Formats: sequence, C-alpha cells, structure tokens
Amino acid sequence: MISWSNADSLSSWKKLQSLKGMVSVADELSGSGAADRIAKYSIPMGGALTYNFAAKQVNEQILKTLAELAEEQQLVEKYQELLDGAVINTGEKRMVLHQLTRGQLGKDVMADGVNKREFYINEVKRIADFANDVHSGKLVNEKGEKYTTVCQIGIGGSDLGPRAMYLALENWAKKNKAFKMEAHFISNVDPDDAASVVKSLDISKTIFILVSKSGTTLETLTNESFVKDFIKKAGCDASKHMIAVTSETSPLAHNPDYMAAFYMDDYIGGRYSSTSGVGGAVLSLAFGPKVFQDFLDGAAEEDKLCLNKDITKNAALMDALIGVYERNVQGYPATAILPYSQALSRFPAHLQQLDMESNGKSVNRDGKPLGYVTGPVIFGEPGTNGQHSFYQLLHQGTDIIPLQFIAFRENQTGEDVVIEDSTSQVKLCANVTAQIVAFACGKSDADPNKSFAGGRPSSLIYGAQLNPKSLGALLAHYENKVMFQGFVWNVNSFDQEGVQLGKKLAKTVLSGNMEGALKAYAGLLIK
Amino acid sequence: MISWSNADSLSSWKKLQSLKGMVSVADELSGSGAADRIAKYSIPMGGALTYNFAAKQVNEQILKTLAELAEEQQLVEKYQELLDGAVINTGEKRMVLHQLTRGQLGKDVMADGVNKREFYINEVKRIADFANDVHSGKLVNEKGEKYTTVCQIGIGGSDLGPRAMYLALENWAKKNKAFKMEAHFISNVDPDDAASVVKSLDISKTIFILVSKSGTTLETLTNESFVKDFIKKAGCDASKHMIAVTSETSPLAHNPDYMAAFYMDDYIGGRYSSTSGVGGAVLSLAFGPKVFQDFLDGAAEEDKLCLNKDITKNAALMDALIGVYERNVQGYPATAILPYSQALSRFPAHLQQLDMESNGKSVNRDGKPLGYVTGPVIFGEPGTNGQHSFYQLLHQGTDIIPLQFIAFRENQTGEDVVIEDSTSQVKLCANVTAQIVAFACGKSDADPNKSFAGGRPSSLIYGAQLNPKSLGALLAHYENKVMFQGFVWNVNSFDQEGVQLGKKLAKTVLSGNMEGALKAYAGLLIK
Repeated sequence: MISWSNADSLSSWKKLQSLKGMVSVADELSGSGAADRIAKYSIPMGGALTYNFAAKQVNEQILKTLAELAEEQQLVEKYQELLDGAVINTGEKRMVLHQLTRGQLGKDVMADGVNKREFYINEVKRIADFANDVHSGKLVNEKGEKYTTVCQIGIGGSDLGPRAMYLALENWAKKNKAFKMEAHFISNVDPDDAASVVKSLDISKTIFILVSKSGTTLETLTNESFVKDFIKKAGCDASKHMIAVTSETSPLAHNPDYMAAFYMDDYIGGRYSSTSGVGGAVLSLAFGPKVFQDFLDGAAEEDKLCLNKDITKNAALMDALIGVYERNVQGYPATAILPYSQALSRFPAHLQQLDMESNGKSVNRDGKPLGYVTGPVIFGEPGTNGQHSFYQLLHQGTDIIPLQFIAFRENQTGEDVVIEDSTSQVKLCANVTAQIVAFACGKSDADPNKSFAGGRPSSLIYGAQLNPKSLGALLAHYENKVMFQGFVWNVNSFDQEGVQLGKKLAKTVLSGNMEGALKAYAGLLIK
Repeated sequence: MISWSNADSLSSWKKLQSLKGMVSVADELSGSGAADRIAKYSIPMGGALTYNFAAKQVNEQILKTLAELAEEQQLVEKYQELLDGAVINTGEKRMVLHQLTRGQLGKDVMADGVNKREFYINEVKRIADFANDVHSGKLVNEKGEKYTTVCQIGIGGSDLGPRAMYLALENWAKKNKAFKMEAHFISNVDPDDAASVVKSLDISKTIFILVSKSGTTLETLTNESFVKDFIKKAGCDASKHMIAVTSETSPLAHNPDYMAAFYMDDYIGGRYSSTSGVGGAVLSLAFGPKVFQDFLDGAAEEDKLCLNKDITKNAALMDALIGVYERNVQGYPATAILPYSQALSRFPAHLQQLDMESNGKSVNRDGKPLGYVTGPVIFGEPGTNGQHSFYQLLHQGTDIIPLQFIAFRENQTGEDVVIEDSTSQVKLCANVTAQIVAFACGKSDADPNKSFAGGRPSSLIYGAQLNPKSLGALLAHYENKVMFQGFVWNVNSFDQEGVQLGKKLAKTVLSGNMEGALKAYAGLLIK
C-alpha cells in the first residue's frame, strides 16, 4: 500500500537532520583510503555509464539513513505505481507515461481507448517511415528536390530537450555516417529569433516541425505564422514544408495544412518529452530512425535499473537522495551541472528546466504548504570553459555549491592533436580529474588569497563516449533523479501551475484593459 | 583619504541589517501608489537606457541607509581612485584600467613608459586600420581573395564577452548595413569544439584571432595548434590567416607567425576585456570600426554617470547596493538575469563570469577572512524562453531569487508579424510587463497549487533598441555594478586565484606523477 506523506513526517528524515556536516570530503579523498572509496562509491548505469559519488559528503551511516528514507518514503514503489499508470500528476489528474515511450516496465496502460505502449511504438514507427521517405527522396518538395534541412518551432520542453539532444549527437552522427539533415530551432517570441533563423535557411528544401501539445502555445503559433509568411514569400506551399507534433485533440491534428502529424498525449509533460515524438521527429529526420531507437534503448536500460530498491545499485535514486541531503540537511541552495563535453553545451539548460520546473514547488501533491525547501537552482556550462569563468566562486566563494561532473574518455569527431605529449581529449579528462580533487581537498597556502578550503562535494557520471545510447541513459538518469526527489518531497513534479499567472497577465496587457502597475510598466515598454 | 574596511565594521551596515523584510513589493505595486513608485524609482543610464527598481524591496528608509553605506564605504571615491590609476588589484599588485579603454575620467595614467589612454586609443586605431584594409581588399589571402570570416580562439574572458557582444549586434549590423564578416568562436579544449567549428569554415578566407593575454593559456595554444594543422591541410599559410591579441610581453607579440598583433596589458582582466582589443579585433572585423567605437562610446557614457555620488542618479551604484541588501540582509543566494531579447542569448553567461569570478571570494583585499557572504550565483536565459522553463521555481519555489529583466521597445531586424492584433515584439514586451507584476504581486487562489505568494523582487533595464551604444552602456553598467559590490564587500574583484589549484593539479595529472585520489580518478577517465 502506497502512502503519500510529507518528508518531515518520516522518522528517517528526522534522523537525517541530525547528520549535518558529518563528512569531510577533504579527509576522505586525501587519506590512504581514497582509492578504495572511489572504487566503492560507484554505481553502473544504463548506456555503459557509471555514477561515482566518492566526492560527496556521505559515509556508511548517512547512506544507511538515506536507504531508510528511500524505503520509508516508498520511492521505488511509487516509481512502480507511476509505471503501472497511476494518476501521479495529481494537479492535472493525469498519468505520467514518458518512460513508456521507451519501454514497458509495468502493467499495460490503457487510455484514450488504446494500449499506450502500442500507441507510442506506432508513433515512433510512423515517424521512422516518414523520415525514411524524406531521406530516400520518396517525399520531395514542390520541385521534386530532396529536403535537406529541418527546423523545429517550439518553446520550453518542445525546444530545450530536443535542441540539447540534437547538439549532443550532431558530431557523433557526422563521424558515424548517420547524419542526414541539418536541424535548426526557433523558440522565442522575439521576432529576431525567427527572422535570423529563417533567413539562414533554404526554405524550399526545409521541413518545419511545429511542436505544441495543446496546439495553442502563443509563442509557437506566432512563430508558425511568421515562418509561413516567409514560406509564401519564397514561393513555396506551406503544406509541403510543415509537419506537426501535437496531441490528437489539438487543432494541429488531422489538419491538411501539414504534410504529416505525429502524436503525443497529455500523459507526457513538455520537459519529459524528448523521447516522445517531440524529440523523435527532429532526431529521426536529422540522424535517421536507428539513432533515435538507440537513444530510446539507452533510456529504457536506465529506467529498468532505476527499479532496484538497493540504493547502492540505483544511480538515479542515490543521486536523488544525496541531492536531498545536500538541500535539506546541508542547506545548499544551488547545484551546478558541468559536462566536460562541448556536445553537451545545452544539456545544463535542459536540466535547468527539467529540475526547476518539476520540483520548484511550495505545496505538496495535495496542495498543502510544505515546511522544508524543495528544488534547488540548477545552472551550468561545459568544462573546461566554466573553469575560466564562474569556477572562481565555486572554489573560493562563501557558499558551497554541489557539483555534478559529466565526462567521457573518447571524443566524438575522432579529430585530435598532441601538444606537450597529450591529446586535447586527455587534457580535458585531466582537467575533470583535477577539478574533482581540487574542490574536495583544497590546499592551504601561506597567502590566504591562494588558500582553498576544499570540502566542496561533487559527483561524476562517466563513460567511454557520448553516443545515442549513453545520451538516452544520461537523460533518463536525470528524469528519474528528479522524479525520485519529487517523491521524497511529496510534490507533484509533473505540473507547472507557476507559469500560468504570467501568461494570464500578458493577455491582460495585450487586451489593453489594464491599470495600476501593469499599465505603468506597459507604458515604459510598449510603443 | 580612502579607507579600506570590511563592510561589517561600518555603522551603516549594522543599521542595514535591522531593515530586513521591511518592504512588501506586493503591497507597493498593488496599491494606488504603484504608478508613482514606478515613475519615481527610475534612473537614466548611458546609451539612452533606464534602470527601474520599483519592484525591488526598498523604501525611502532603506535607500537612505544604502546611501549612507555608499558614503561610509566611499564607493564613488574608490571608483575615482581606480580611474586615477591606484593599485586596486591588490592580489596581483596591478592597476585596473578597463574603463580607460573607452574614456578618461581620471588623472593621466602612465605605465610601461607610456600614457595608457593614448596606448589604448592607438590600439583601437591600429585595429581599425587593419579591419579597414581587410574590408577594402587591401589585405587579401594567398590567392588574392578577400577574407570573409573571422574566428576567435580564446577562453573565459577572451571568449564569453566578445561572443556575447557579437551575438548581441549581429542582427542589428545586418539590418543597418554594418555587417562585414561572419564571426565564429573556438574555446573549449574538447577537440570536438575546434573540429566542428573549423570544418564549417572556408579556411582560405578566414582570419583566426588568437587571444591570450599571457600567450600561455593551455586551451588556447592547444586550439591554435589544432587549427594550424587544419590550415596546413587546407594548403594555406598560417601566417596569412592568424592575428594575435595579447600583451606586449607575451610570446605571441612581435612574432612573424602572425599577420598582425594587437595589444592589451596586465591592467585589464579577461572578464573586463570586451572593450579592449580582445573584443575590439573581432567586433571591428565583423561590424567595422565605427560600430566598435559606438560601443565604446556607450560604455564611456555609462562610466561617467557612475561617478555621481547621489545613489538615486547612479544606476550601477543603486543596482549594486540593492544587490548587497538582497544578499546580506534578505539572505538570497542567487540572482537571475532575464533579457527579453534573443540577441542577448549569451549575455547571462558573460555576466555569470563577470560577477562570479569577480566577487566569488572569501577573503578581503588584504587576504583576511570575511564574516559575511559575498557574490551570489548568477544564471539566466532569454525570455520568453525561460518562462517555459525554470520560471516555475522562480514563481512558486521555496527560495526567493531576485530577478533582473532587460527589455527593448523595438527589435533589431525590423521583421515582425501581427497575430491576434499584436506584433511579436509587443507580445515580448507584454510578457516582461506581466512577469514583473506577477512576481511582485502574486495572486491568491482557492487552489493552493494555483496560488502565487508574490513578493519576488525584480529590476528592469530598458531602452528603445539594443544597438552598439546601448550595448556598451549595458555592459559598463554591469562591470561597474560588480566593482561597486566588490568595494562594499572589501574584496579584490580583479584577481582570480581560485582557478589556480585546478590548473596546477591538471598539470600533475598530465605529468603522470600522481597518486591517491588523483590517480584513482584519472584511472577512470584517461585511456
């Protein structure tokens, strides 16, 4: 029997509060036991990745208490409920089915008169057939020419995840002869965004992918019209240059204005939609259906591992629990995501949405105010770039910011250069190594300005290479981490009511019927 | 007489601590006085911009105490000292002269045997002459063809600022017939970064700009070699395709390997170098010398306004003081930068470096530990994109994150579309308006999940359009804000010792002579 309780009602939570400041990572990683600890505090993930938490502020006692918390709060049982089709999204009274887009780990889920797993598989197949027809030249433009480019129009979850995944695999696909079409993205309602992207395209050979679950997203529909003007000016027929990814109940569905439409549903939130048609259309067109399927398989592998109730064998669960310890016991307000891979340049921006939109909540899943802090601020940039930027504060600032490093032994393009006896890739990995130890151990110096206190915790996810499968696993890891943290905090991680008030007030401003502060600010900004 | 004291030794600081939680922005902006407050809490900036702080948690009493703090801590006097050439960078025992690259507001500053203002002006002129020769075709490649493209190789301050400024002006320049050459950027030591950029270029028509003050930055020299391999493979002569921006004492200076070299010096930190040759070369080549000069003029205008001792007439000073109140009295750990302009997509990443690398310090300018928190975490993405992403946490999360909005009445490309009776640009501005009021005032709802507590403070910088002059003023505003905050906290905002330990340990890893945790982590990551 599942029981939904606030974290502060649990005895393991209370016990955890007494374990503040217990572990010095400087001591742990400076001592003779460092290598053993690094070998031990390690969990295999899907996609041949590994999660290492040796530089986190935990010991056996804390891990034992975190395991009790996982059990008392029934974290894996709740995940199984979700997989079985329970209405986990209490606010919107919806099931949460994004894991079902990549595999089935629970009961058959029926909704809208269909088996949802079959529905998702069928959409992947429909997208694959469409992509194959585009790539083979079976589907061509008005002049009988092959399409060369895709351009996604979407915002939030219809943009950040798919864009980050495209950038993550672009170089890999080029190297592995899987690159089919260039992809571009338009998201902002700022007209300069659409204008500058559209002007860079050969519209006659471009397929635009309009992505909106509801089919009513203001920014996306505005940009659709914007783009359609350009298509018309280019002498082309929009219905030969636009497909839709939407829900079957949206105005974009079954609409002859689009070459094709692919479907998702209300059970997949925007920020969890990279493995649905929202990511599937652009990734299948850009890299071919096989790459998208490998990406799904990597995610599915990770989803399965996340069912393990042993926290020392479940990386996402461990990551989630340590994050809770850092947030609610140690009191750290933010977390940095630091991928040592240029291909992951926009992955932190995606995780920023995934995490902050899911768990940036002040009420529990029943709408009752919570007595503890929830989701932290998430930010990050790729290393080594960040080292020459904000790392100063991470090393010597007055607040401690927990860090999540991501690194791969091999690069994607196969291009490299040896300078001073090492390749750039080895330099990159040497820097990750050095940073973990520098943050953890610090270094005293006679000059206090050159002293490093250390004690700054980090984790490391690593693998051989960033490829479709490891990317899928990496994405699923973070989705599941966020889910588990939501379960700990007893919040609904799958709605986003916090974005509604701004939307409503923007409509008021556009209507012209405003007063007070709205009117005064509008007077400054609107011509 | 200037006195350098820790903030917590000042009587105004102690008074300020007693003013916590004094102002409800919800009350201030919901009440009948809202329009008056919005009109009053407004300060003109350079570049025809305006800083509005009506949605900040301040009132007359707090402002009076902040003015006392500014006076007691001698903030403007310290700025004047800096302008006059005092050794403000105590750690490295250097003057701080970035403002002198765009104007002279203090005494003549002599160093290295020259008048530094004349030196900077001369470098701007040398860059302008070089750029004009490239644009006119007086300088051509081996085949006598015009160069079409520039590619900057640099990291940290040699990348983030110049890249953000280029993106900020690219569309403006295209619209205003000032666009001369496309610019690209290589920064990361990840070899996939350089590989993917270089492969996208026509090397025979590209000028690479190698930027390193010391001429010894590992990432940059590695990428130089990487690029030179490609130049050679393309059958070109590197000395016809590479210029350097460096200090006169660096190995890159006066070196026949480069077509030309332009100089900066040790008195300009990387993160403050956008108005030096570091930004000057790429911006002058991309947009022409006139655009770069306008950018400098905008910054100079703002620098001058920052000398006003009246905090109600000095936007950067006010912004700095309010930030200190938010950080040290209200206890907020992070600040979000939210530009409603796609052209400013990388501006938050630049400010992240500028702020976090400058003020992420735990010791004062004399190396003594501080008893209060200093620089906050800085992050941000453009609106309206962020609204569909992390704004959920900003609206309904358990922590309050102060916000800095930036907006313009007009877009840059002149392209737009009317949907539902409004242009995209008006929708963009309606959204800023709506968000400020939504964050400040919130809204109660019978469903607590749809309730907004409000009370979330924000400021707004706005103007007619983002152009070279307003961009220069915007940049200078933030540079000066960070400087003033450093003065309040009595830290040295101009060194970055926190990045040294990681560099040193990376060298240890690359040498192979490592043990303990370094060896164990390297074993996981390095083939």
